[in-house]
Amino acid sequence: MRLALIGVGLIGGSFAKALREARKLDRVVGFDIDAEALRRAAELHVIDECAPSAAKAVDQADLVLIAVPVGSVQQVFRDIASNLSKTAIVTDVSSTKASVVDHARRELGAAFARFVPGHPIAGIERSGVQNADAALFHNRTFVSTPVGQTDQDAARRVEALWMDLGAHVQRMTPEEHDAVFAAVSHLPHLLAFALVAHIAEQSDSQRKFKLAGSGFRDFTRIAASNPRMWRDICIANSAAISAELSAYRDRLTMLQTAVEAQDADALERVFTRNASGTSANTML
Amino acid sequence: MRLALIGVGLIGGSFAKALREARKLDRVVGFDIDAEALRRAAELHVIDECAPSAAKAVDQADLVLIAVPVGSVQQVFRDIASNLSKTAIVTDVSSTKASVVDHARRELGAAFARFVPGHPIAGIERSGVQNADAALFHNRTFVSTPVGQTDQDAARRVEALWMDLGAHVQRMTPEEHDAVFAAVSHLPHLLAFALVAHIAEQSDSQRKFKLAGSGFRDFTRIAASNPRMWRDICIANSAAISAELSAYRDRLTMLQTAVEAQDADALERVFTRNASGTSANTML
Repeated sequence: MRLALIGVGLIGGSFAKALREARKLDRVVGFDIDAEALRRAAELHVIDECAPSAAKAVDQADLVLIAVPVGSVQQVFRDIASNLSKTAIVTDVSSTKASVVDHARRELGAAFARFVPGHPIAGIERSGVQNADAALFHNRTFVSTPVGQTDQDAARRVEALWMDLGAHVQRMTPEEHDAVFAAVSHLPHLLAFALVAHIAEQSDSQRKFKLAGSGFRDFTRIAASNPRMWRDICIANSAAISAELSAYRDRLTMLQTAVEAQDADALERVFTRNASGTSANTML
Repeated sequence: MRLALIGVGLIGGSFAKALREARKLDRVVGFDIDAEALRRAAELHVIDECAPSAAKAVDQADLVLIAVPVGSVQQVFRDIASNLSKTAIVTDVSSTKASVVDHARRELGAAFARFVPGHPIAGIERSGVQNADAALFHNRTFVSTPVGQTDQDAARRVEALWMDLGAHVQRMTPEEHDAVFAAVSHLPHLLAFALVAHIAEQSDSQRKFKLAGSGFRDFTRIAASNPRMWRDICIANSAAISAELSAYRDRLTMLQTAVEAQDADALERVFTRNASGTSANTML
């Protein structure tokens, strides 16, 4: 199989390395707008060949993986649409899905049927092809979001590849995906960004950062995520994120009311439900 | 030195174990309203003797460490006030300081001069004397908050003990302490509690908890902290926490406005400042 890798960062690089280890690849042609990253990917043998453009990279490709920031996906669709072979399957790894599917529908023409939108849940704080890891997707979830027009065989083939890499595949609609991840990923990241910004603008922020305990350090670690990636996600999933922020702000208002009233029962009720909820669901 | 340990949980137990290892102790008399915890502390030789009451525990004590939930400190002051020797030094480890100092001033009478309010920054998620660890305070900060009436010799002696246990001592006023920790500890915990409660009440919360990535899991871990401890902290530090919540909610409103406007520059500005702020201050 000939893979075109558009975007040679952590996720794209790990995908290529893992597929190569699984002996699924004959050749990997890579492209990245960051020439230095592209050179490094070749040096590390993550790709076999550097293409001068996304369009050239997809020439004769059996599979195209688009692993670029969400904000750049539309341009990639535009660049590659007329160069895709009649049988090439296109897939992506973007953290938001509905807007990506809309762009694909608009830009890919007939090839839209062979576009399988996906999202591997495997982020780590590091980035870059130098941190690519063939085991990154082991025991992680790959969310597959094919739509009505998606060729079922193409979807199954992409899902089978992720399973070969050790991932569990879960299907949902692009809209479901975006609502779920607005709640469990995008909202928490925005809360962390907002907290660090809130502390940073206080007059004695240096002392505060120094005195912060482990709870706060979890927030700062989350808030150290890639700023442009999160900018793109906020724009691409604006409506779902805004809905989550509204509901969360309401809950915070209720909590503040309980704090100001020193309402022991209301406070303990919220905190107790939390502790039991998390131990049952996620602390195993 | 004869230590009276009122509250034989993780922090009190670790303090006693560490002082004993440092050969500073002749005898430890413990009391806890949880008879089972008290029995366990004796079994583990964290204390030498179980007292039948807080008042009895402080008989002949040179040092009294109060390591009970913030909401129970006032009652302990009441119980021990008339049994303290003329030279006994009293100290505590409560996570809030101004209200504790108020209670001490009201309840301890002449002994208030020998009360040294303190807060070791060394929480871990586990609790209970069975998790007590003599190394818990190594390289951690002990915040000492003596007030104008505090005997300077008593404050220095308590601070010297924490330094013997490997802690760095930092002095501030009770009010400064409460403002700092409302920002860097109490607020982050409330945000985590609120997030988990927010997700838990959604119809598909089970699926969401399962799909949550590492960022969300940091929140659930923080939100699994002891509910009654956090209830007490919210009540004891209500005003400072409420002020932090107000300012944070304003910031979240601004962020939501930027998300809804899909304002790339505003979003990237917030996220970039965060990343650089954290890497400079806390990610080392």
